[in-house]
Amino acid sequence: LETKLPKVGTTIFSVMSQLALEHKAVNLGQGFPDFEPPEALREALARAMAEGKNQYAPGIGTAPLREQIALKTGRLYGRELDPAAEVTVTSGATEALFAAIAATVRAGEEVIVFDPAYDSYEPAIELQGARAVHIPLTLPDFAIDWQCVRDAVTPRTRMILVNSPHNPSGAVLSAADLDELAAVVRGTDIVVLSDEVYEHIVYDGAPHQSVLRHPELAARSIVVSSFGKTYHCTGWKVGYAVAPAALSAEFRKVHQYLTFCTFHPAQAAFAEFLASAPEHYLELPAFYQAKRDRFRALLAPSRLKLLDVPGGYFQLVDYSAISDKDDLAFSEWLVKEGGVAAIPLAPFYETPPGARLLRLCFAKSDATMEAAAERLCRL
Amino acid sequence: LETKLPKVGTTIFSVMSQLALEHKAVNLGQGFPDFEPPEALREALARAMAEGKNQYAPGIGTAPLREQIALKTGRLYGRELDPAAEVTVTSGATEALFAAIAATVRAGEEVIVFDPAYDSYEPAIELQGARAVHIPLTLPDFAIDWQCVRDAVTPRTRMILVNSPHNPSGAVLSAADLDELAAVVRGTDIVVLSDEVYEHIVYDGAPHQSVLRHPELAARSIVVSSFGKTYHCTGWKVGYAVAPAALSAEFRKVHQYLTFCTFHPAQAAFAEFLASAPEHYLELPAFYQAKRDRFRALLAPSRLKLLDVPGGYFQLVDYSAISDKDDLAFSEWLVKEGGVAAIPLAPFYETPPGARLLRLCFAKSDATMEAAAERLCRL
Ligand SMILES: CSCCC(=O)C(=O)O
Ligand SMILES: CSCCC(=O)C(=O)O
Repeated sequence: LETKLPKVGTTIFSVMSQLALEHKAVNLGQGFPDFEPPEALREALARAMAEGKNQYAPGIGTAPLREQIALKTGRLYGRELDPAAEVTVTSGATEALFAAIAATVRAGEEVIVFDPAYDSYEPAIELQGARAVHIPLTLPDFAIDWQCVRDAVTPRTRMILVNSPHNPSGAVLSAADLDELAAVVRGTDIVVLSDEVYEHIVYDGAPHQSVLRHPELAARSIVVSSFGKTYHCTGWKVGYAVAPAALSAEFRKVHQYLTFCTFHPAQAAFAEFLASAPEHYLELPAFYQAKRDRFRALLAPSRLKLLDVPGGYFQLVDYSAISDKDDLAFSEWLVKEGGVAAIPLAPFYETPPGARLLRLCFAKSDATMEAAAERLCRL
Repeated sequence: LETKLPKVGTTIFSVMSQLALEHKAVNLGQGFPDFEPPEALREALARAMAEGKNQYAPGIGTAPLREQIALKTGRLYGRELDPAAEVTVTSGATEALFAAIAATVRAGEEVIVFDPAYDSYEPAIELQGARAVHIPLTLPDFAIDWQCVRDAVTPRTRMILVNSPHNPSGAVLSAADLDELAAVVRGTDIVVLSDEVYEHIVYDGAPHQSVLRHPELAARSIVVSSFGKTYHCTGWKVGYAVAPAALSAEFRKVHQYLTFCTFHPAQAAFAEFLASAPEHYLELPAFYQAKRDRFRALLAPSRLKLLDVPGGYFQLVDYSAISDKDDLAFSEWLVKEGGVAAIPLAPFYETPPGARLLRLCFAKSDATMEAAAERLCRL
């Protein structure tokens, strides 16, 4: 059988987590917290099981959870959503991204993505027989060059895929970026897919510029988010997609045949927790900002250059003072010899720019950060 | 946006469950038990959360769960599997079916399916730009006419999709059917996708004829199963796919970008429960046979004709003595006026044969079966 995905191997996240295990490295690679979700959430999940929420949930998600999502979105972004028609719960954000692409992108069409781009985007596009058109973000601030975007749009452009806070860089879109995006898509039938899984992790008092704040964009966007990132339970695999009714209808057609529905007890738990503890996500920026600042302080004595981190829970570091290996080779050396697993950026580029950058996850306990920093300061 | 799936509406299972709620009907439509998974399983899941298994599981599934699946498959079907290369845990069987089709079927190719066919198959095929070739099962025993299959194979045939025990009919494949299938695919590069989600629910002492028992077929098959069906927790959404290493590698490429991984605490719970209570699935045929026989006895006084049920947890009934409405109209009448939700067969056919058949789920408590039977006997 000839492969349908010749460019795809095992995702770098799995490869690095496996190497971290084998070499007993501190794992700052794959993005996940090494602390636990709130106890009230785990208790609510156990209670949901005891109460018999163990059979299929509605395919689009339970009504209480969709309502909580709509309430939250209204409160934060000023967009009132109809939970019956515009909110769909998914088995993680990855499923939502795949369903959004599969529902809207056809063979022969083009999707504009910004490099470095999360590694699930392009295979999802290629499986539609479509093509990813890669636009590199500017270095070192990982901003979008809007002139490049205007130049890249063709009659075949079906979708522009944005991601803010951006993984791996932590860059965030500004309100001006949203206006630029709106200007690009105005008068076309381009769909915007907005990956906002780190929506609650934006620093220094800045508001998250969700495309949902921008009525013109919201009217043609599918916005994807993730409870795993927000509630420290990446392994629970609950996410959601928000889109206008007509787009949601197409999204749901695919979603119902991708996974049908999502683990039911967790949906009950999230609905309960969102209703009873909305302050949790409001406190998240301060929670992670303390970690970010602590991690940066720990790395200050090292020879790594720390890039700015406006959002997300990843620190990019420039290791060019330490090695002139490329990032794939250096990250392999680092996990085997240096005792720290990191993520290189090359796998997220069509044409890697040759920057000497690695991504380190700081969603970690003090002890983990200290153990990693000790090793990194020795380099 | 023009739809990519013009034939697809909301799945009949969601439609009927919704109508059942609205009309307070006894819901024998969507296939799910109205009793609970084993308490030990729920406790194991809660324990896994307490032990911190809340972050990403390995994308292919946890090692202990893959090992248990391999052990079980070896014991039951005499096929020794390599859990590292041949077993992949998925977010329900639906995801496994979609990933199997997306990984192997290309635009312009054909997939042979047998009508009535589970409703997720064709949209998954169409999203590849491929075409489902429908072969009706014979009536009233829902058997495969192998001459029709031989006639339907073309150079474009990429896959044959079989399902045993069959949903909605309960028909099972025989060892002779597997030999026929092997003869059809011999010398071709056709992949077999075998939906065996009811593998543990086969009656009257018959063994389940998994394609894994047939070495020649197993070497080119992707076999899909479901813990939800086996452990009374359809809402937990854990399934798996078994395939030879090369096929599994292609399957995993797609799976990692569809959902990446599956709810972690449930994987820990299933691994523990499979190791400590393998008798559970061995007792399942007797457990469901008692329900089947009880349900049939309750319906004996009705004017419904009961078809044979060799496997699965659905009873097909012929209502032609009661109404000459077609099955869509009759099931709509029945949920609204008769107080029972059932599943019509028409949505699972390309060309409905006009049989007067409905599907009733008997994975139900005595009280539910009795309430439904009382209403059905009044018709
Ligand atoms: C799905 S595994 C990767 C997790 C993640 O989002 C990341 O590390 O960037
Ligand atoms: C995924 S909802 C449908 C459940 C089911 O398999 C059935 O009722 O046939």
